[in-house]
Amino acid sequence: MKPKLNDVAKLAGVSATTVSRVINNHGYLSQKTKDKVFEAMRELHYQPNNMARSLQGKKTRLIGVIFSDISHPFFGELVSRIEKLLFAQNYKVILCNSADDPQKEREYLQMLMANQVDGIIAGAHNLGIEEYQQYGLPIISFDRYLSDNVPIVSSDNQQGGRLATQALHQAGAQKIAIFTGKNHAGSPTNGRREGYEAYLKTAQLTPHFHEIPFEWSPALKMMTIKKILVANDYDGVFCSDDLTALLTINVAKQLQLSVPDDLKVVGYDGTALIRNYHPDLTTIEQPLADISELLVSLLLQRIADAECDLEPMYQLPVKLVKGITA
Amino acid sequence: MKPKLNDVAKLAGVSATTVSRVINNHGYLSQKTKDKVFEAMRELHYQPNNMARSLQGKKTRLIGVIFSDISHPFFGELVSRIEKLLFAQNYKVILCNSADDPQKEREYLQMLMANQVDGIIAGAHNLGIEEYQQYGLPIISFDRYLSDNVPIVSSDNQQGGRLATQALHQAGAQKIAIFTGKNHAGSPTNGRREGYEAYLKTAQLTPHFHEIPFEWSPALKMMTIKKILVANDYDGVFCSDDLTALLTINVAKQLQLSVPDDLKVVGYDGTALIRNYHPDLTTIEQPLADISELLVSLLLQRIADAECDLEPMYQLPVKLVKGITA
Repeated sequence: MKPKLNDVAKLAGVSATTVSRVINNHGYLSQKTKDKVFEAMRELHYQPNNMARSLQGKKTRLIGVIFSDISHPFFGELVSRIEKLLFAQNYKVILCNSADDPQKEREYLQMLMANQVDGIIAGAHNLGIEEYQQYGLPIISFDRYLSDNVPIVSSDNQQGGRLATQALHQAGAQKIAIFTGKNHAGSPTNGRREGYEAYLKTAQLTPHFHEIPFEWSPALKMMTIKKILVANDYDGVFCSDDLTALLTINVAKQLQLSVPDDLKVVGYDGTALIRNYHPDLTTIEQPLADISELLVSLLLQRIADAECDLEPMYQLPVKLVKGITA
Repeated sequence: MKPKLNDVAKLAGVSATTVSRVINNHGYLSQKTKDKVFEAMRELHYQPNNMARSLQGKKTRLIGVIFSDISHPFFGELVSRIEKLLFAQNYKVILCNSADDPQKEREYLQMLMANQVDGIIAGAHNLGIEEYQQYGLPIISFDRYLSDNVPIVSSDNQQGGRLATQALHQAGAQKIAIFTGKNHAGSPTNGRREGYEAYLKTAQLTPHFHEIPFEWSPALKMMTIKKILVANDYDGVFCSDDLTALLTINVAKQLQLSVPDDLKVVGYDGTALIRNYHPDLTTIEQPLADISELLVSLLLQRIADAECDLEPMYQLPVKLVKGITA
């Protein structure tokens, strides 16, 4: 049986009026009360009736856009594109840099439940997946699994991993390492890693995995990369993002390793910033224009019709951009 | 005499009810009607009574943040910092990338007039200054003059221009050019240009100005830089932003000019991205942490008290970050 407003009130230990005020964001409510109510809504999988919602005509024309940090060039370009596309459709973007802050990400989900935004595009990964298990809510995910009911848009990370490794191999590298983030469940870099491994297997070469966590500072990353390059005689490195590739090239220079003669390097992402200002870097380009258009279009479909039939996963092709580093 | 709601209605050729609905963003209104009403409000310098506003208790806890494009690393880092500071104060950010779109910038000012946001932080420059001549509205500007009633936060661009030119000169350069944006009224690069000129005058050297418009594509910028470097025998270039400095270094490489031996280069901005991934670049660092804290603190003061006494201009110190390019 579908849970009712009264069930939420009972579980949260508040009155039905309070639940209604939380849902409609009406009047003053303490954060503690709001948290209790949202917690109960989550637990019961309660959702405000969509029909009632649209009958109220309470469209805010606001979209929550949650990414780890727009000061990272990849997210900066992606969010910039998303904002422009949504603006053209008469929506405005509420920006959330959620890096290292699950409570922040949670608060945006609560805004969605409270009808303060009409939908969410999420590319963050602090929250446990269970928090996204509200169905029917208009959420589209970039590049990671959040829940069965949240469609994922991503680029073909496996193919990207294969193409990158192939580029290194065809340029002559034989001992090829991968520098990548932590092996989180649902993380996009897993696919890149799998593509790397698959290509090496076909080529009968040994994989060499090194974790460089995304959230580390650049200085710590460089120290680690230096240790790795000194301790091994790699002649090729696939970095699962372009910024790590730039650090690797800087470290190689410090170690007087010539790129690409002694060490070949391939990055990943291929933002406009990298292609324009680092044309030397060989990288895998994610189709940022297509990704942002698809994210926006799917979200608007789901806002217009909460029951509309979307695929669970949309995977867009990537391509190799040849520089001189491999 | 202060203009009244009826005066706005009369000038706009609509009913007083319509004006009220525009101001309170209530019910369906065509864009044409809204434009007419806002136009009349602007012309008459009409503003909704602030007291009435706060009595309505209509705080949205939303702040409009308008910069040309967050895919530019400087604006990406600045907006990321602003968003984090505002979130900590229980405000959320509505993001506007206004590049090349005065209508977009205008629409955010209308949101402010219509009480849909509580305040605006603006670093864009599409609109004529007259559009910002509403007084009393909580707006803080980054780095450019908008109106007498809008405080400006900026870094010391003149001092930055002097420091950059001095660094080139002390590194041995004698024929020092500046690559900078167009000479817009109120643009921050004017100060950098003035500092450059002032230093050269003291050193009894001749200035060489070259305009590389900010909005040009990187490819066009590179073509232009190549022509300039081929046609002149500069041994030093001060670029008024770091990305142009990176392009200049790339062009020098193509022309087989050694940096810094044949050509010394100094940039401007010194974002975390540049300092972490291009530690070689000598640049002028703007204090982004202090800038964002001041922007947010001044805005919150003005939201709390529309009449509060703020300085017209807050100028923060810059510093030289020494790499190896000069």
